[in-house]
Parts: sequence; C-alpha cells; structure tokens
Amino acid sequence: MQRAAALVRRGCSARAPGSWGRSRSSAAAEAPAVLKVRPERGRRERILTLESMNPQVKAVEYAVRGPIVLKAGEIELELQRGIKKPFTEVIRANIGDAQAMGQQPITFLRQVMALCTYPNLLDSPSFPEDAKKRARRILQACGGNSLGSYSASQGVNCIREDVAAYITRRDGGVPADPDNIFLTTGASDGISTILKILVSGGGKSRTGVMVSVPQYPLYSAVISELDAVQVHYYLDEENCWALSVNELRRAVREAKDHCDPKVLCIINPGNPTGQVQSRKCIEDVIHFAWEEKLFLLADEVYQDNVYSPDCRFHSFKKVLYEMGPEYSSSVELASFHSTSKGYMGECGYRGGYMEVINLHPEIKGQLVKLLSVRLCPPVSGQAAMDIVVNPPVPGEESFEQFSREKESVLGDLARKAKLTEDLFNQVPGIHCNPLQGSMYAFPRVFIPPKAVEAAQAHKMAPDMFYCMKLLEETGICVVPGSGFGQREGTYHFRMTILPPVEKLKTVLQKVKDFHMKFLEKYA
Amino acid sequence: MQRAAALVRRGCSARAPGSWGRSRSSAAAEAPAVLKVRPERGRRERILTLESMNPQVKAVEYAVRGPIVLKAGEIELELQRGIKKPFTEVIRANIGDAQAMGQQPITFLRQVMALCTYPNLLDSPSFPEDAKKRARRILQACGGNSLGSYSASQGVNCIREDVAAYITRRDGGVPADPDNIFLTTGASDGISTILKILVSGGGKSRTGVMVSVPQYPLYSAVISELDAVQVHYYLDEENCWALSVNELRRAVREAKDHCDPKVLCIINPGNPTGQVQSRKCIEDVIHFAWEEKLFLLADEVYQDNVYSPDCRFHSFKKVLYEMGPEYSSSVELASFHSTSKGYMGECGYRGGYMEVINLHPEIKGQLVKLLSVRLCPPVSGQAAMDIVVNPPVPGEESFEQFSREKESVLGDLARKAKLTEDLFNQVPGIHCNPLQGSMYAFPRVFIPPKAVEAAQAHKMAPDMFYCMKLLEETGICVVPGSGFGQREGTYHFRMTILPPVEKLKTVLQKVKDFHMKFLEKYA
Repeated sequence: MQRAAALVRRGCSARAPGSWGRSRSSAAAEAPAVLKVRPERGRRERILTLESMNPQVKAVEYAVRGPIVLKAGEIELELQRGIKKPFTEVIRANIGDAQAMGQQPITFLRQVMALCTYPNLLDSPSFPEDAKKRARRILQACGGNSLGSYSASQGVNCIREDVAAYITRRDGGVPADPDNIFLTTGASDGISTILKILVSGGGKSRTGVMVSVPQYPLYSAVISELDAVQVHYYLDEENCWALSVNELRRAVREAKDHCDPKVLCIINPGNPTGQVQSRKCIEDVIHFAWEEKLFLLADEVYQDNVYSPDCRFHSFKKVLYEMGPEYSSSVELASFHSTSKGYMGECGYRGGYMEVINLHPEIKGQLVKLLSVRLCPPVSGQAAMDIVVNPPVPGEESFEQFSREKESVLGDLARKAKLTEDLFNQVPGIHCNPLQGSMYAFPRVFIPPKAVEAAQAHKMAPDMFYCMKLLEETGICVVPGSGFGQREGTYHFRMTILPPVEKLKTVLQKVKDFHMKFLEKYA
Repeated sequence: MQRAAALVRRGCSARAPGSWGRSRSSAAAEAPAVLKVRPERGRRERILTLESMNPQVKAVEYAVRGPIVLKAGEIELELQRGIKKPFTEVIRANIGDAQAMGQQPITFLRQVMALCTYPNLLDSPSFPEDAKKRARRILQACGGNSLGSYSASQGVNCIREDVAAYITRRDGGVPADPDNIFLTTGASDGISTILKILVSGGGKSRTGVMVSVPQYPLYSAVISELDAVQVHYYLDEENCWALSVNELRRAVREAKDHCDPKVLCIINPGNPTGQVQSRKCIEDVIHFAWEEKLFLLADEVYQDNVYSPDCRFHSFKKVLYEMGPEYSSSVELASFHSTSKGYMGECGYRGGYMEVINLHPEIKGQLVKLLSVRLCPPVSGQAAMDIVVNPPVPGEESFEQFSREKESVLGDLARKAKLTEDLFNQVPGIHCNPLQGSMYAFPRVFIPPKAVEAAQAHKMAPDMFYCMKLLEETGICVVPGSGFGQREGTYHFRMTILPPVEKLKTVLQKVKDFHMKFLEKYA
C-alpha cells in the first residue's frame, strides 16, 4: 500500500510485465513531470559515480591489465568476427601467465590435486603411490578430510610445516618456524595484507613505502588504495638494473620531508627488470633497513627463475641470518612466494605464502584476525603450494618424470632469456639488459621526437603510443614502461619470454620489423 | 666493508654459525653497552607494533573466528596431549563449514573438478559423459585450456554466462547480463570489494553503511577497515527477526546527524538469525532504498537454504524488476552468492559471484581495474561456481544421483532446523525463533544477574562468559551474540545446525544440561 501510494505520488503508471526498461535513456524519456520538481530523487542520478566513489580506489592504476590489454581483447573479438588484420592472433606477452602460453602443468602436481579433489581416485591404479601419499597427508589435515572445508585462516597446518621445511632446506639450514608462515591467495594477497597492517598516519606522518622504479604495479596500486606515500628509488639501468644503497639513502632522505618512510620493498629476481641481486647487495640493503628502521618486504616469487650462470638466488632471510643476531633478531622482514611462477606456473590456483620474521607476537595476532575476516585462502591453492615446496625426491616413483618436466621448463626459459636479450640488442634503437632471472625483458627503446609529438597529440605516454601501434600492427601485446615507472625521458616496454621458442623467435622478429618501420616513419 | 665497519662501530662480536639468537630476551641479555646510548636504534624496538599499526585494522573484530575459537584450538591440543576433560572432542558449531562436519561433497561437482584438474581423466571410462562435457567446456574457456592460467579479472566468460542463465531461470525470466556478473573469491571478497569502492568522505560526510543488528561480522569488519560508519538497524526478535521499514527510517534519520548513509546491507536468508524475508518486506526495503537513495547490498548466499514450508526465497533482483522500471532502472544493487553454503558446502574452494544492477559503466570499469590488481579469483573456485549454477538436468546421466544427494543434504538440514528450534524452546531460559532458513540457530538465553557479575569480574561480555563455560564444560564451540550485535541487555549465541542428526541431538542435549546447571549455579 505504502509503495503503491508512493508510486502514485510520483506519477508512475503501471507497466506491462516484461518491459524491463533497462536503458537509462529510454527511462529518462518516459520520466513523469513530477520527477523534475525533485531532481535530488529518482532514476536519473546514481549513488555511485566517478565523483562519489572512493578517491583512493580511483587513483589506483594497474598497467599489466590496463588499457592496452582491454584493446587486445577488443582486437581478439574483431578477429573472431572475421575482421581482417595484418595478423591472425593476439599474442599476450603482457602477463607472466605460463600455461596460457602453452606451458604444460607439472604432472605430479596435478595428480596430487586430482586425488585431493576426488578421493575416489585414491583407489585407482593409474596414479603413482607417491602422489597418493601426498594427497592422503593433505586430506588428513583438512576438516572432514576435504578440500571443501575452510582451513585455519593462516593455512593448513601440515602445509605450513612443509613450507617451513622447504625454506630451511633452501637456506642451508637457517631454521624456519611454521608459526611464521601464512598461506595466501597468491603472493599479491600477502603483499597487500602486510602493507595494509603497516600503513598509518596522516599528513607528514603518512607511511612512506619505498618501491623501486621500475616496479611491479601491484605495489603502487596497493599504496594508492591505502592512501600511503610511494617513495621511489631508481634502479641503475646502466648497471644491469642494480640497486644502490646510495640511491636508497637519497630517496629516504628526500622522503622524510613529506612522509614517514617505514617500509622498503624489494623484488628479487626483478620484475619487470629481470636482474638478480648479488649477496653483497642484499647485505647492504639489510644493513640499510636496520639503520633506517625500515620494515623489509622481499618479493621473491621468481626464486626458481634464475638463468644467468653468473647469478644465484639468495633469500633475504638467509642473508639476514648470516649477518648475525644483531640483524637476525631485529630486522622485521616479510618474504613472499607463489605457485604462479617458477617452473610450475600455476597462476589460476592462486597459491602463495608469506614468511614473517621478527614480527611482534601481538601483530601476528592482528594478522590472523585480519585474515580470518576472509576466512581462508583457497584450499586448492594451498594444496598446490604444498606440492611446490614438497616435490618428489630421489627414490620416489615420480621423481624422474618430475625432474625431467622441471628441467625442461627451466631450460627453455634460460634459452629464451638469452635469445631475447641477443635479438633485442641487434636492433638499432633498442637496448636490453641481460635477463638474469624472472620471466620478462624490459628493453629500452628509442622513440624519435616526432613519435613523441604524435603521442602527445593522442594524449598518450610515448611508450603507450609505441605499444598500441605494436599491438595494432602485429597483434603483440606488451606493457609500456610508463606502467612500471622509468627515468624521465626514457622509454621501455615489458615483454614476457613465455611463448614457446619458435613462436618467441617470430615475436621478436616482428617486434624488430615493427621497430625499424616505426623509426623510419617518425624519423 | 661498510657493514663490517658498522658492526664494529656498534660493538658486535662474531658469532658461531648456528647461534641464530632468535629469542628476544637472550639477545637483549647479550646486547653490547653501546646500544644503550642509541636507544632509537637496534634490536629492541620494532617498527610494527600495536601502537604504530594501521588503527583501522586494529579496530577490526571478527567473532566467528575470534577468542572463543582460539580457545577451542587450545583445548583440542590439550586433548591431543592426553589432558583429561569432561568430553573427548571439540565440536566446532561456530562456523558454517558443512564438510568439516561430515557433509559429503556432491559427487558430480567433484568429478567435473577432477577432470578439469587432470585432463588425462577425460579418457577414463569411470567418469560420466555429462561431467566430461562440463569439464571440456570450462577448459576450452581457460587460457591454454588449463585451470592453471589466470582468467580475466571479472572471471571466465562462459562461467559468467552460466551464472547469468542461472539467475534468469531462478528469477522466472528476469534477464541477467553476463557483463554484470563478477566472479569472486567467496562472497566475502565481493562484499568487501564493492564496499571498498563505495566508501568516501571524512567527518560528517563519511559514508554510512546500514547493517542489521544482529549481523554477520564480515560487514562490521570491512566497515572498520575502510574507516566508514556502521549504521545499525535492529531486527525485530519478537517478530521472528523481521525487518521493519520504520526501523530503517529511524536508523537513517539518526545517522544523518553524523555521517552520509549511502549503503544498505541486507542478509536474506538471515545470518545469524535464520529468518527468510517475505516478498512484501523486500519490496518495502527496495522502495525505501529508492526513496533514500541508498545503494543496496543483498547477501543471498543462503538462497538454497530455506526450510520452513511457509517461506520462499525471493531475490532482491527479481522483486526490483517486478516493481517496474521506475525502480528497476534506477536502484543500484549488488547481490552475492557463494559455493560455500546451499547444499554443496564447498567453502574451501572460495568460489562466489556478485551481480551488479544499474552500476554506472565507468564504475564497472573501476571495479574491473580494482579486481585486476589481484589478477583473478581462483579458477578452481570459478569452476566450482559453474557446477553450482549449471548442475545436471533431467535426461543427463548424473541427474538422478545429483538430485538424490542434493535432496538428502537439504532434507537433513530442514529436519535439523526443526529439531533445534523445538529442543531449544523446551529449555527454561532459552528462546529460539523459527529457523526458516540459512544454517544457524540464534537462541536468546537468560543469563542470571549473578552470572553477569561473574562475567564482569572476568572482563567478559556476559554471553562470551556463557559460551566460554559451555566450551570448557562440554567441548561445544558456539559464538556469543555480542559478536553479531544484539539489543542491550539481551544475550544470544549462534550455533550451526551442521552436525549430523544424531550428533546434533547429543549437542542440543548437552547445551540443555549445561544451561540448567548454569542457571542453578548463578541463581
């Protein structure tokens, strides 16, 4: 009755069922006159608009899936509709998504996952005993012996134990405590959760978070969302993207004028830059963090992706402990790993973990509380993480096949890293640092002044203009350097090295041809 | 060199390798004197403390996994260690975790998931054809035909299409657009994402979010985290926890003095209160939202959990469209569903979806951007969601078994709902409204004044004191009403009805016995 009266009051007439009137404009055309008298009410205004929305969310940018990727999607649809292009497919070299590029899952991992998913298979003779053993162990630790139960918010106990054992092995015996392991929904979730706890303050005491330039834009996005301050330190492109403590010092000194620098984020091996930090460099960074009282975030998701024979992965945790108790008992550190990278490339399962060192027990409690609001990370992703840290060992039935598959993926990646570096460096106007690790090339490209002008006319960053043209002319989707940050006046793009070898060769040749034509056109 | 010099400067001596010095106190005992001169430096202070952390995170509370659940964990460990208790196991009736309570997964769902996980099984004769068909369709829509690839941030296209088709069927033909469907990491993720976009302003223009009392504490937790304002409206316990528009009107009027009420959250069927809203009530609420310009959040994760023969689930979307284009073209609505509840109870996969109605296209773009920072929801959870919305149909091989399993779960739940209501209402000092839907009882308990005093002496809310005693004496873990909100001076607890029938009978009998003794003790 009340509603009916209100409708009459507003001059609404009955409608035939089915006339849903979903279009705003047609609805507006039918608007009764009385609505115009009450412009603050009624259908024409929305509550949630660009003006009224959370301004911090509005400020977020995320280039890896930004406008160029939306454009790539449009082009794919056009190709599907039969629209002719100078190419037949879009190659998505914008994101480290190995299996989408044809990499096959590690058989053992998927066998264990299938057994956990559908335990009837535990009776099947077509699954190896070591896979069954792993699956039984995981299921026994799950509520109701099922992946379908919530786990503890911090993650399944036995999986956290396996992660701790893995870290201990990796770090040559430096102990890891399962109580310091938090399983996460991919590494991104861990990074944003710990940053969320860390930021505070307003005005000049807003938390400053030091991030490299170039950086992986998850960091800038989360910092925007949390209304914290990005403090940039530049990696040294002339020196293989090395990190220098002098540059950290400059950055923190300048930042103290306008914020409270409290966190230092390091990505090693680098994304998008592919460098692998030396032990000496890590030691210097830890000393700097200790001196400046900075909380360290070590993004180590590419720890298995080291290709250069001169480089080795050193974990921040290990170096911290080797520096002695002065450091190892005081520097607060969170490090991150993931199922998405390495040799397994299981991005879709969203598995990951975070190890925290020297976290105050009360803060650990706060972390558990915060995580408990979202109940738990996906248990299937937790199970995938377990296989990553607890793979077949010599003597087990699946060891040989597992090793073969692992070496094949990593060997291919190493070849592709070298191939990419070599080919880019043969192109005039492109310079590419060695791809020591991770999964990306981040070459510097010369963009002629006339192209810069043309970009400005299109209100685009010059490297966005370059990448858009590359996409439109070749179907190759890469991400402009401006999405990661770069020194003023330099231009780059990030390209994954994930396509299969032969395809990657074609991609590189196409980029080369495009680049030469581009230089010519805008000479 | 630099570090070595610094160590000497700070008076550090060399340590034998292996003496990691992880204990703070022993490290302090060995601290060299020079450190005391520079108290602002060194190991004894942490960067991240309860004082320095994000105060909004500190303010978060989440009772469903709060102190009582930590206590339950401690008791379980004590039982494992052989410590004698008046009971042999902890019964976790604190959380809607069906499979942890012994509910079996729906066979068809797990078959499809196993096939997607390990596609070699597509050749196995032990899997039904309809499951294989579903699995092939999902895999074809995944990058590289693998659950291991990232999906689009909004979710896999064909799964969003299946969700839209499901909603259209559910709502008797009211159309749903796949473009309005966002797959999420459980419903919690969707709810917190949309709230994150909605909140803005400071001081008196801070966003007010209307939530029921009692409410599911995800809402209060996210509102704290976002520094928005909770605007409480009380459900009417005397009237089966009904929602009254007069109460909404009171709440919004009073809220306008100190914030900008912009969002109205409704949980239907209710959590923790178990009521199912009438169509009339939903219509009134929508009219109120329209009138007051409120963005509607409809938490409909219990849409399959309606037990009372007098009740039916009506979706907000359907009622909105039936109210005519004046409403259906203007009221902004987000509704949520999940794989975790219903008859499948797949909590661990963290699958869910959100449907948005009348969202401004620019805001949809903002939503996609925000979601893209976390890349995508777990693809395995998306696949689970697909089976929930696209189950076997008559004529398909698996239909009969699927229907039998589904009816068995829902039939049991209906019986347990009635059993729980009846038994609680036989106990003096306990009153329980009908459990029309969802998975919980939220009985009101009389707590004698002497017990209230005893609770105060322990610095506990009276119902926390009651629930702690219940846990310690019987091993039954339930959540105090104070974690959900309740009218001043009333006390409740939330208990799931998920234990198997015979076990639930025992649980109810134990609660009854405990309660009688409690009344006697504090008479």
